[in-house]
Amino acid sequence: MPEAILNDISHRRYNPLRGSWILVSPHRTKRPWQGQQEKPGTIELPQYDAKCYLCPGNQRASGDTNPNYDSTFVFVNDYSAVKEVQEEYTNPNAEGSLEDSLLVAQAEKGKCYVLTFSKRHDLTLADMSPNEIVKVVQMWTDIYAAHLSPDSPLAGLKKTGFVPPRSPGDDGARVQDQYRYMQIFENKGSAMGCSNPHPHGQIWMQTSLPEEPAAEMEQLRKYKREKGTHLLVDYAKLETEKEERIVFENDGFLVVCPWWATWPFEVMVLPRRHARALVDLNEKEQAQLAEAIAEVTRRYDNLFETSFPYSMGIHQAPLEGSEEEIECSSLHFHFYPPLLRSATVRKFLVGYEMLGEPQRDITPEQAASRLRGCGGKLYRKKLA
Amino acid sequence: MPEAILNDISHRRYNPLRGSWILVSPHRTKRPWQGQQEKPGTIELPQYDAKCYLCPGNQRASGDTNPNYDSTFVFVNDYSAVKEVQEEYTNPNAEGSLEDSLLVAQAEKGKCYVLTFSKRHDLTLADMSPNEIVKVVQMWTDIYAAHLSPDSPLAGLKKTGFVPPRSPGDDGARVQDQYRYMQIFENKGSAMGCSNPHPHGQIWMQTSLPEEPAAEMEQLRKYKREKGTHLLVDYAKLETEKEERIVFENDGFLVVCPWWATWPFEVMVLPRRHARALVDLNEKEQAQLAEAIAEVTRRYDNLFETSFPYSMGIHQAPLEGSEEEIECSSLHFHFYPPLLRSATVRKFLVGYEMLGEPQRDITPEQAASRLRGCGGKLYRKKLA
Ligand SMILES: O=P(O)(O)O[C@H]1O[C@H](CO)[C@@H](O)[C@H](O)[C@H]1O
Ligand SMILES: O=P(O)(O)O[C@H]1O[C@H](CO)[C@@H](O)[C@H](O)[C@H]1O
Repeated sequence: MPEAILNDISHRRYNPLRGSWILVSPHRTKRPWQGQQEKPGTIELPQYDAKCYLCPGNQRASGDTNPNYDSTFVFVNDYSAVKEVQEEYTNPNAEGSLEDSLLVAQAEKGKCYVLTFSKRHDLTLADMSPNEIVKVVQMWTDIYAAHLSPDSPLAGLKKTGFVPPRSPGDDGARVQDQYRYMQIFENKGSAMGCSNPHPHGQIWMQTSLPEEPAAEMEQLRKYKREKGTHLLVDYAKLETEKEERIVFENDGFLVVCPWWATWPFEVMVLPRRHARALVDLNEKEQAQLAEAIAEVTRRYDNLFETSFPYSMGIHQAPLEGSEEEIECSSLHFHFYPPLLRSATVRKFLVGYEMLGEPQRDITPEQAASRLRGCGGKLYRKKLA
Repeated sequence: MPEAILNDISHRRYNPLRGSWILVSPHRTKRPWQGQQEKPGTIELPQYDAKCYLCPGNQRASGDTNPNYDSTFVFVNDYSAVKEVQEEYTNPNAEGSLEDSLLVAQAEKGKCYVLTFSKRHDLTLADMSPNEIVKVVQMWTDIYAAHLSPDSPLAGLKKTGFVPPRSPGDDGARVQDQYRYMQIFENKGSAMGCSNPHPHGQIWMQTSLPEEPAAEMEQLRKYKREKGTHLLVDYAKLETEKEERIVFENDGFLVVCPWWATWPFEVMVLPRRHARALVDLNEKEQAQLAEAIAEVTRRYDNLFETSFPYSMGIHQAPLEGSEEEIECSSLHFHFYPPLLRSATVRKFLVGYEMLGEPQRDITPEQAASRLRGCGGKLYRKKLA
């Protein structure tokens, strides 16, 4: 049994999805912690907050007023990191100059949305039922579908009534840009840079394929070419057999602490069959996915009896790409939570981790076993 | 002038040292911040703390007592992440099995030191004079020299009386391991996971070359092969000409906010001539390096009038490697500080940054100009 050894010695594990290594030091949680304590996640909140820019009916920084929405609501981020309209820029092309090889830049266009998960200011995904979460899954799917390149093999798979909201100042005359990639994500909790507890996520689209999905694409493509099968489908099969890192499973999805997890209680949500993107899921699978998300977030909160901070997001096929790129893409969710020992003590990925390589203390097997053990009802009363 | 455009539009910049991209969104600092506030760095501390495990004469967790040292003191970390003696482990070799390609691990041995920078509990590098810091530079050099492979072209360049401290339980009978790589770093401030304000850094040695130095090595080697010159020497020349990102310079060293900086006030400290490692520096250069470190840390503290948190570390030639690997290596320091707007508001590299790619708000040129402007005396009285 490797487990017995791996629980005890320091070792490196390989992440075949990114093509990189992490250092695991299982004995290291024995050291006492005298460092920074986090504020435990806020739990007592009003159902409606007149000062929240996400609550239904409230006014935002842009001056726009939110509709009286029920579950989800999408708008263009008032402080977008990438924008639709801007000047062009590429490096002055003085071929062979030092500047040309050492100071390289390219303009990047894009569009950023904010998406609320519920009209209720005081809820989180952990408080919501799979039936409520499925509406978020459907909205993610609609937004993704609406921005697919017409040339993508995925285009037209889902019919959607979703009309992309316009940026302030956009009167609709301009032809909308086609973007290469869409990143859907959620930052939850102030420890993860979230500044508003109203349950919401973000969606950034841009003209380039960013670093992380590009690294994964490279690895998925290589594996497909070499073995003829899909890396993440094979991985889901292997984890189902091994039963060592599974947190939760249903017929369609698997929740695992991956072999190569970096964050203490990091998990991946994986479909059992090959799905390239959200639009590949049927209704039943959407419900199974919603159940998996409910299970992850509730177990997280139960683990240290706190509103568990995390960043989570979806990797899937790019909006625009070659047929091979689309076909080798595999839909999956990453959850990256920072807490390590308690509601107030996190793992810092700092000096060695920034300059050397990611390092973790408990093993993914130990993390999975603890998350497996804290299913059941949410530790706090539902606020419904 | 590209600057005028780059200050205004979102763009990606290429990092030739790592071979990766970052997203820059200069307009983005306009958004209001309602999120987490950091505790400003502690400044009022006693010169000696009886409960500190680093102060001279105090007892540590291991039971050992610190000597009455004056400036620096090195010991084996009582909670080392990698250890000298442990069981071996490599993947069960069932060739062609899924397990063999998806669950890959290797045992990792190593040794971790803690190094104090001063006997004074209440000082930081920012409070110390170049004359005091040079002792730290010399101790880093000694420790590095003492662990070089006897086969390295760098071996024997510096004579040192330094005797590596032993791990608890090591009676000296065992032959010491030869390690591949040494990471010297400092985590400063509780925001960067540091749990003891006594000025100190860490040194981790290990049998593998970790991810970050491996990525840099790849890029440095490629550049050397293609152009025949050293990437970082060329880069230092270019920055000296451009004068757009320089924070401080003396005859031997340059402090710049690199073109590709990720953290808001990230800087690199670069020698002007090619140096493979600390042992390549002569006494004059050690003093120039100490001055550069003093300038960075003092300017950091002056910027927001606080004890500025950061992680910093040294990249240089591996302890053991091929001649080409050693020759193409370039000594340099990275400083990664999290603060963005004030003593209490940091940049969070979270959702998009973890799942997409690193993203920054102010440009490196803006950061450099602000750091250039806050030289001079330390804003608070020296505690001497
Ligand atoms: O070794 P320390 O100071 O206890 O711990 C700190 O630095 C280490 C190396 O960067 C990190 O792994 C830890 O998460 C951090 O808290
Ligand atoms: O967009 P927000 O929620 O204001 O900001 C948060 O998420 C962004 C995307 O991960 C990060 O760039 C910011 O640093 C973080 O504070």
